[in-house]
Amino acid sequence: GLGMSLPTPPEGITAEVITVSDEDELKAKAASVPGKIVHFNNPMPDWTPEEGACYGHTVRFRLFGASMAAKLGAKAVLIRSVTARSLRTPHTGTMVYREDEPSVPAAAISTEDSDLIARLTEAGKRVDVRLIMNARRDGDSTSSNVVAEITGRELPDEVVIISGHIDSWDVGQGAHDDGAGVVMAMETLGTLRELGLRPKRTIRLVLWTNEENGMAGVKQYIKAHKEELPKIVAAIEADAGGFAPVAFGIAHADEAKQAAAVKRMEAMMPELIKAGDMSVLPGRSAPDVGHFKKHGVPVIGLYTHGENYFDYHHTEADTVDKVDPEELTRSAATMAGLAWMIAEMPGRLDD
Amino acid sequence: GLGMSLPTPPEGITAEVITVSDEDELKAKAASVPGKIVHFNNPMPDWTPEEGACYGHTVRFRLFGASMAAKLGAKAVLIRSVTARSLRTPHTGTMVYREDEPSVPAAAISTEDSDLIARLTEAGKRVDVRLIMNARRDGDSTSSNVVAEITGRELPDEVVIISGHIDSWDVGQGAHDDGAGVVMAMETLGTLRELGLRPKRTIRLVLWTNEENGMAGVKQYIKAHKEELPKIVAAIEADAGGFAPVAFGIAHADEAKQAAAVKRMEAMMPELIKAGDMSVLPGRSAPDVGHFKKHGVPVIGLYTHGENYFDYHHTEADTVDKVDPEELTRSAATMAGLAWMIAEMPGRLDD
Repeated sequence: GLGMSLPTPPEGITAEVITVSDEDELKAKAASVPGKIVHFNNPMPDWTPEEGACYGHTVRFRLFGASMAAKLGAKAVLIRSVTARSLRTPHTGTMVYREDEPSVPAAAISTEDSDLIARLTEAGKRVDVRLIMNARRDGDSTSSNVVAEITGRELPDEVVIISGHIDSWDVGQGAHDDGAGVVMAMETLGTLRELGLRPKRTIRLVLWTNEENGMAGVKQYIKAHKEELPKIVAAIEADAGGFAPVAFGIAHADEAKQAAAVKRMEAMMPELIKAGDMSVLPGRSAPDVGHFKKHGVPVIGLYTHGENYFDYHHTEADTVDKVDPEELTRSAATMAGLAWMIAEMPGRLDD
Repeated sequence: GLGMSLPTPPEGITAEVITVSDEDELKAKAASVPGKIVHFNNPMPDWTPEEGACYGHTVRFRLFGASMAAKLGAKAVLIRSVTARSLRTPHTGTMVYREDEPSVPAAAISTEDSDLIARLTEAGKRVDVRLIMNARRDGDSTSSNVVAEITGRELPDEVVIISGHIDSWDVGQGAHDDGAGVVMAMETLGTLRELGLRPKRTIRLVLWTNEENGMAGVKQYIKAHKEELPKIVAAIEADAGGFAPVAFGIAHADEAKQAAAVKRMEAMMPELIKAGDMSVLPGRSAPDVGHFKKHGVPVIGLYTHGENYFDYHHTEADTVDKVDPEELTRSAATMAGLAWMIAEMPGRLDD
């Protein structure tokens, strides 16, 4: 299932460590894996303007490393934290046990500790680790999405969703992930109310619960609002940190409709931030609203300047001092502007 | 005495927190201090080219805060870590109990936690903290300076000391503080040996022990080498991290001799790094070699580009990955060049 690592026995798991950089090296060393702790040491590259943060590529060892290694007989797994910068900072996050493989405990260690183990094992030293993990799953309990809206003045049953997710990983404050997205969505409604603006279509804020650990919030919302889905003209989410805005991703199940929506959004961009550059990224959106895609809803993600996001992401350091109020305000204004324009359009975004 | 915090009782010290930014605010709130935990929340400013890191200014609360607060009846002290950047990173370091004031436990907390407590107390909320500290002093034990030299070919009894300190704070690896200084001094001797160069005067490497906790190493060296002090023509130390070199500080007990040494060193700078800019800072040196000053020895500190030094200083993050080999090499070459030139001069540096 999806979620968090298994606990270890109380005395921990003590075993020799075998370091691998990726799946190929794991396969090459398969014969040595049984009974060992497998250490995935795959460094996340530095952020670049061209490639961004490479999170999607590097995170696969956190997501699937435990099952990859357990399949070959590993007793536990250590993964290098998914970050390019660290002050001895461990990064948590979702991991997945594949149902057809054994489940073993898995822990993320700081990049510095990962480097240390790799240096030792590469030098031919034997490294033994005693892994003690208290991770536990307390079972499910009831939680709620938070919903608020300004009802449309002409087409109240047509809805533009603006959103962020209200949960965060259990370290830090979740200031960037995803307090910032929550603030942007709330500021969008607050700004419209303050300006006395009622849009043509309804603008509905939804703060999704349980994004970090299974996205039960958005799944349940879609189930509960099945009838209404054809009337959702767009679902917007910000889940990329509270930095300055750089782009909107827009995805659609229908290719022609996606192209139409991209064209319309590109035409809006100069209006959105007169002094800035915003681009449109076809085929991309955001984690919660992405679930609306298969129901024919145009799904939109707000992207921000991501150079520092993964320094803080899923760590004790994701705290409010890391958010620049001026940058967050610019992203909030960008979400507000886009939501307003989509709500005001003569036709629908993807027509 | 000099050193580390007292431990708390096993159950900890639980008390209300009172936040102050500096001595003035502490004085203004003196009546509320008895029985409380005093929290010094004095942020270290960002590094600037003009002001540098402002460490010397901000560190006084770590050094003397416990005595300042205990004098007014505080039960314990929390200080904001001395850094301008943090990933929830506590910074350790020396603190001093003034002999005429009561001693109370003192702990450094991360800037983020310091911000949090300050926000709550400024909002009028009562904050109670339970402080549990296991700090202990195991008593003194024997340790050694490490000494090696290339004996001079003409004036073997005249000595240029090149140095760093071999101990580090008990977190991280001490890669910048002061592994880098140790490497620079070792590389200086190694380079001369590799080039087959024997200087006119002796170049002696000393790796000082116990810099972090009282500087017993350099004090004992001076005691043991009393007779030799007039023959030490310069004492050079690098204790500012393994970054690229920017300046040498030079201090002398005699003002006229300091001016002469500054002039001579300024004349050397263009020779030192043909492509770089090195400046000379009159009146500054480095912690260990500074003890030679009162004995009439010209004392010299190598300064490096300090923008990131205090991000790592005295933390778990002071690890070898933070040192750029190219920058460290440039600083090592700079120390080697200066030591060589002082050892080769016709007269003495401060003549």
